[in-house]
Amino acid sequence: MKSTFLHAPGDIRVEEAPDPVILAPGDAIVRVTAACVCGSDLWPYRGVRQFGHPISMGHELIGVVEAVGADVTTVKPGDFVISPFSFSDGTCQSCRAGFPSACDHVAFFGSTDSSGLPTVGAQSELARIPMADGSLVVVPEPFDQALVPDLLTLADVMSTGHHAAVSAGVGRGDVVVVVGDGAVGLSGVLAASRLGAERIIAMSRHQDRADLARTFGATDVVAERGDEGIAAIRDLLGGDQADAALECVGTEESMDQAIGAVRGGGRVGYVGVPAGGSRLPIGVLFSRNITVGGGMAPARQYIPELLPDVLSGAIRPGLVFDLELPLDGAAEAYAAMDERRAIKTLLRP
Amino acid sequence: MKSTFLHAPGDIRVEEAPDPVILAPGDAIVRVTAACVCGSDLWPYRGVRQFGHPISMGHELIGVVEAVGADVTTVKPGDFVISPFSFSDGTCQSCRAGFPSACDHVAFFGSTDSSGLPTVGAQSELARIPMADGSLVVVPEPFDQALVPDLLTLADVMSTGHHAAVSAGVGRGDVVVVVGDGAVGLSGVLAASRLGAERIIAMSRHQDRADLARTFGATDVVAERGDEGIAAIRDLLGGDQADAALECVGTEESMDQAIGAVRGGGRVGYVGVPAGGSRLPIGVLFSRNITVGGGMAPARQYIPELLPDVLSGAIRPGLVFDLELPLDGAAEAYAAMDERRAIKTLLRP
Repeated sequence: MKSTFLHAPGDIRVEEAPDPVILAPGDAIVRVTAACVCGSDLWPYRGVRQFGHPISMGHELIGVVEAVGADVTTVKPGDFVISPFSFSDGTCQSCRAGFPSACDHVAFFGSTDSSGLPTVGAQSELARIPMADGSLVVVPEPFDQALVPDLLTLADVMSTGHHAAVSAGVGRGDVVVVVGDGAVGLSGVLAASRLGAERIIAMSRHQDRADLARTFGATDVVAERGDEGIAAIRDLLGGDQADAALECVGTEESMDQAIGAVRGGGRVGYVGVPAGGSRLPIGVLFSRNITVGGGMAPARQYIPELLPDVLSGAIRPGLVFDLELPLDGAAEAYAAMDERRAIKTLLRP
Repeated sequence: MKSTFLHAPGDIRVEEAPDPVILAPGDAIVRVTAACVCGSDLWPYRGVRQFGHPISMGHELIGVVEAVGADVTTVKPGDFVISPFSFSDGTCQSCRAGFPSACDHVAFFGSTDSSGLPTVGAQSELARIPMADGSLVVVPEPFDQALVPDLLTLADVMSTGHHAAVSAGVGRGDVVVVVGDGAVGLSGVLAASRLGAERIIAMSRHQDRADLARTFGATDVVAERGDEGIAAIRDLLGGDQADAALECVGTEESMDQAIGAVRGGGRVGYVGVPAGGSRLPIGVLFSRNITVGGGMAPARQYIPELLPDVLSGAIRPGLVFDLELPLDGAAEAYAAMDERRAIKTLLRP
């Protein structure tokens, strides 16, 4: 099969690789209908984080089950499925509590599962999904093929935006600030809107992203950052601050921006993968009673909740994809996102 | 009047001081019926934190209103009142949202208010309460004088324990770990029990405190600390972890203990004043989806909610007081707590 590898920072190649096969009785093999590039894929691409090379890339896919192991009971060959970006057993305490991304046996694409058996990246023609019963969600068919981008977002970006909003306790009538105008931040805007936020302030200095934020429900856009951004939000709110903020970047600056945007007793939901410098200013959190929650989104938990709204067209999270390429175009997909020519790129094997 | 001052670490003296007077139209002057010593008072007493001396001590009191300023409308001379440990205007956004301890004009005992006017410590015969309408809560009379210790806990320690439990989202059926067996931790046990926790594991290695924890609703006591403590909790729970943990100490070790005690997606409520070394391990919080909330308790918000349960005898938070002395005995009150001969000391002017 064809599969995408990073050989060195900036060096993405789509190459022939062995077809993945069933390695454990809980496995499924999925033929990929669509995959995509995540903002977090850009970290090794940019050399921000050091990894051993080559790296098998991608962690978001939807597709059709080709084969299942002997123990799999909830999916069968021919089923159209969404795979969350993390695999989970569905039975441990964290899974039962609704946090499969903190599963005792959590595993990821392009790595190994908890038994040490290899997984491939999702930017491939085929993928091995361990713990298929705990991981995959079947999409009822038939569905409109135009929904492919929307369905694909449930694998990560929309579920992650939703997690930011849920972790920030966003509810009806809230005033919400969203820090980050990448695909996750934009999904956070959509999620906050879906959860009933009354006012959503998107922090963005890119016209295309600000426009999409408004399409997704943002009522205001603030271009300023840092203390100026915090002051601009106060101005918009007549001197008040937000009830909640979604931190969708993962830097110290973005976390400070989120914390500085909320009132006493405010809530910050964070889903930006904490970059090197990230830290939480406990003194400020303590004195201002700010709650911080979030982390790796429990996508497997959210997909069944969000799927009906995607299938009905109530939400169109797939609008975050503004570039679509064949899998062979993966190198350009990365370059376009790296150079901010694209918000998010969909790949069709 | 008599008032308590710290002249140097370990040097507590009760001395004559000028009677406080109305300085602003929102003030009240309260004659103190009972005050007490807080664990956080021990920090300057032990010299852990450096302050200018002398320090006017104490921040918990109940008493009778002697005089009010021209603008005060909700309390009048003769009213029996509880003063929360922080003063608040009751009108700013944070106050309206239920977080008066993050008030825009928050002020404290033994310091100055937001106009720079002086306040005295609560371990005194009289105290000036700025922003009396936003700060004081009237206790309906008559009430049984035996409830004085219970009422006094609402000023801080019981409200703070309640805040730990509320911030940790404790609800019916939860398994809760309480880190810290001081008066706040014990109050946290009582609060978790009141909120319906099914199983409450108190971490304590002092028999008297463990006994009181059980009286307050703890179902289990774990004496081990650190990794051994975490393992002991897992053993108690058949390999599982807690849904929530209350951090009631304020050190790095106690925060790690709380975070390590909860399952993926678990919740930590923290009320220990962050000591120098405190920090939050964002990488662990992110990967395990642990929410952290808390801070300075919004006591003014909680007192009206907790007061009926105190007046009815449904909860007996005053049991944390195991020593009662006249105000003149303040030096011994501090020494007894410092040497762990007392959990918490009540002072009667």
